[in-house]
Amino acid sequence: MRIGIDETHDPARTSWVVSANGHGDFPIQNLPLGVFSPDEGEPRIGAAIGDDILDLRALADEGLMPEATKKALYSRTLNALFALPGDARNDLRKQLSALLSDEAHRRAVTPMLYRAEACVMYLPAVIGDYTDFYVGIHHANNVGRLFRPDNPLLPNYKHVPIGYHGRASSVRPSGVPVIRPRGQRKPPDAENPVYAATERLDYELELGIWIGAGNELGDPIAISEAGRHIAGFCLLNDWSARDFQAWEYQPLGPFLAKNFHSTVSPWVITAEALAPFRTAQPQRTNGDPVPLPYLWNDKDQASGGLGIELSVSLSSAAMRKADLPAFLLGKGPASNMYWTAAQIVTHHASNGCNLQPGDLLGTGTISTPDDSGLGSLLELSRGGSQPVELPNGETRTFLVDGDHVIMKANAKAEGFVSIGFGSCHAEVLPAHT
Amino acid sequence: MRIGIDETHDPARTSWVVSANGHGDFPIQNLPLGVFSPDEGEPRIGAAIGDDILDLRALADEGLMPEATKKALYSRTLNALFALPGDARNDLRKQLSALLSDEAHRRAVTPMLYRAEACVMYLPAVIGDYTDFYVGIHHANNVGRLFRPDNPLLPNYKHVPIGYHGRASSVRPSGVPVIRPRGQRKPPDAENPVYAATERLDYELELGIWIGAGNELGDPIAISEAGRHIAGFCLLNDWSARDFQAWEYQPLGPFLAKNFHSTVSPWVITAEALAPFRTAQPQRTNGDPVPLPYLWNDKDQASGGLGIELSVSLSSAAMRKADLPAFLLGKGPASNMYWTAAQIVTHHASNGCNLQPGDLLGTGTISTPDDSGLGSLLELSRGGSQPVELPNGETRTFLVDGDHVIMKANAKAEGFVSIGFGSCHAEVLPAHT
Repeated sequence: MRIGIDETHDPARTSWVVSANGHGDFPIQNLPLGVFSPDEGEPRIGAAIGDDILDLRALADEGLMPEATKKALYSRTLNALFALPGDARNDLRKQLSALLSDEAHRRAVTPMLYRAEACVMYLPAVIGDYTDFYVGIHHANNVGRLFRPDNPLLPNYKHVPIGYHGRASSVRPSGVPVIRPRGQRKPPDAENPVYAATERLDYELELGIWIGAGNELGDPIAISEAGRHIAGFCLLNDWSARDFQAWEYQPLGPFLAKNFHSTVSPWVITAEALAPFRTAQPQRTNGDPVPLPYLWNDKDQASGGLGIELSVSLSSAAMRKADLPAFLLGKGPASNMYWTAAQIVTHHASNGCNLQPGDLLGTGTISTPDDSGLGSLLELSRGGSQPVELPNGETRTFLVDGDHVIMKANAKAEGFVSIGFGSCHAEVLPAHT
Repeated sequence: MRIGIDETHDPARTSWVVSANGHGDFPIQNLPLGVFSPDEGEPRIGAAIGDDILDLRALADEGLMPEATKKALYSRTLNALFALPGDARNDLRKQLSALLSDEAHRRAVTPMLYRAEACVMYLPAVIGDYTDFYVGIHHANNVGRLFRPDNPLLPNYKHVPIGYHGRASSVRPSGVPVIRPRGQRKPPDAENPVYAATERLDYELELGIWIGAGNELGDPIAISEAGRHIAGFCLLNDWSARDFQAWEYQPLGPFLAKNFHSTVSPWVITAEALAPFRTAQPQRTNGDPVPLPYLWNDKDQASGGLGIELSVSLSSAAMRKADLPAFLLGKGPASNMYWTAAQIVTHHASNGCNLQPGDLLGTGTISTPDDSGLGSLLELSRGGSQPVELPNGETRTFLVDGDHVIMKANAKAEGFVSIGFGSCHAEVLPAHT
């Protein structure tokens, strides 16, 4: 299967679900997949359309879904759907687009729609393994500069899509509050560490990649085949305790600084939906090494990038009390990734490591080269030395209890209807006593 | 529940399964749990007894298992059994011990026994997350010395049980061959990296900890409660590609160097079975910092150690052809762990990270301070500079194709019958072309 642009991306196509037309996130050109439950109902698979969620299990019950997807649509997670060949997911998308655009189906399908605001969203899949990468080159530069001003990028960075394993059990869908973690940290002027609540709680603005078909242990994934293994994308907030991180990370990398909570947006923006928003991969510049052949593919270089703009905003408790809107901390394009999603997937499996449907890969923090779109407070506050001012006069070096962090993303391309990721947000709660 | 010494540990107790009496690994005092299938049968839960495996599902069918464990015993994995309160597992152990020691049950139980050598063993649990620690202090010293001769241990080592997340999907039970991984490595004298089969394939001799009851996200585990969260132990071989590791590990730690395969022994040696083999935790010496209170518990210091001896042997293809036995490369006690299992568990959850039944924690390589029990070839060969000689004149700096690595462990304590872990072994196969 080749993911291509077809009638489902037609900018002229509208839906009889009126709220979908002109919807910033979920017009009929998007049709993201997720797991939801209506009020007092059981979790089931749905698709977002405008302000509503369409119950795909109910559609399957009525014989309105492609036969190849039917069994997977009776699951409470998307893992089985992710495992299907891309053709099956593409057929599902075409069928959903037809059902929601053609007036003839309005009467039959309307009872299967639920107001999204009255539904509960769940993690879309059981995450077998979660891996976080580090492909936001300006983030790597910015953070590296805090430690090594003259040599911020390590020698492997432009050869290896650097990544490490994260914690699957603590990934939560948008909206679940983050409890400020306690942990071991060593204050800079202290002789010994303390065990106490983090004083440097931070967010990290990332894209998440949901793995579709898996590979067998021992069998790498060729870069020309990597797209077949990517089911879709989401937003990911890789909450971080910078003080724990600084003390614990040598020699084996971040651990408790990261694994207390990670937030994902609950809707899976499918690879099919993103077809019109593929771009060239622009980050390699003159003088950069040519990646090894296993990571290199002309087609991937021409269209492996993503025309996605990501943003992060903050709303403090005081701002909400004063009815102030959330304050935009940063906004920037996904083109600040040095490696493409295909390169990430191929590298991960290059030693035969087996990926499985529902695995989650994070890109790592995506920051801009300037201050307009920094993806973490660590970068915005220059390692905590320059407080950021909020509209009501409050300042932040790192997050305080009651802060609400909201991430958003939109895919844009000329001649196509923009689609959004929905929101990836959570509030910081005080540490447990 | 307190894990204690009871009649199941009585050294005078014998089994009517004759092969169990005097069995090096599985006398009636052990009764480890695992998942097996008899020839052409379905996977099910069993207990090892001598040369046989007892089918616990069949026992449950006959109403011979404690009611509280019955539902869990119908599962194909041990996760549900791990999730039960320790009391339930303890009752299960007592019942198994009674059934297998009392002649009166011989007739009813005999049909539920299978010759172990004719059975297939599986992973005992679905591993939600796998975490590897670094608590073998002499290993940390030995490896640190290769990089920093004057200062091998980093400043955090004696304050923090250092750990990092590993890959759950590639953990395999003993016997599954390891395919030599390809990967990116930078030869020391080369300007650029290559993608090729590892030339520095190594084993790491570790204990694995199987998590029992979990904790909720946000709720740490007090060290006094940690034992309640440990279901049992196994052997773990953390196969490593040292050349990938050296090139990739900065700044986020080991990744593809480790995640291509990890081998566990298939039998879970329960915390109950190990009760007689608890020892004082001896590693802290004068001058070492006192750990922070959250990691400190007098009872754990008095009895949180494990009287277990671990060994690793190698059998090359040529040795097997010449009918030579496997060659012992190293043998040493688990007391070379700087941190106890309870400290490992408590630290992991100290930031609220949620552990789940069936999670696997590795201790990290356990090495002796001298050369008698080094847990990796990296240490034995001094970073590849001093080849190890095998009995037939072959030498090794790192593993070659056809090498068979065999790990074993036994718990010993005066006045008690020694129990073993069974074998954790696998053969190295050539890289896929």
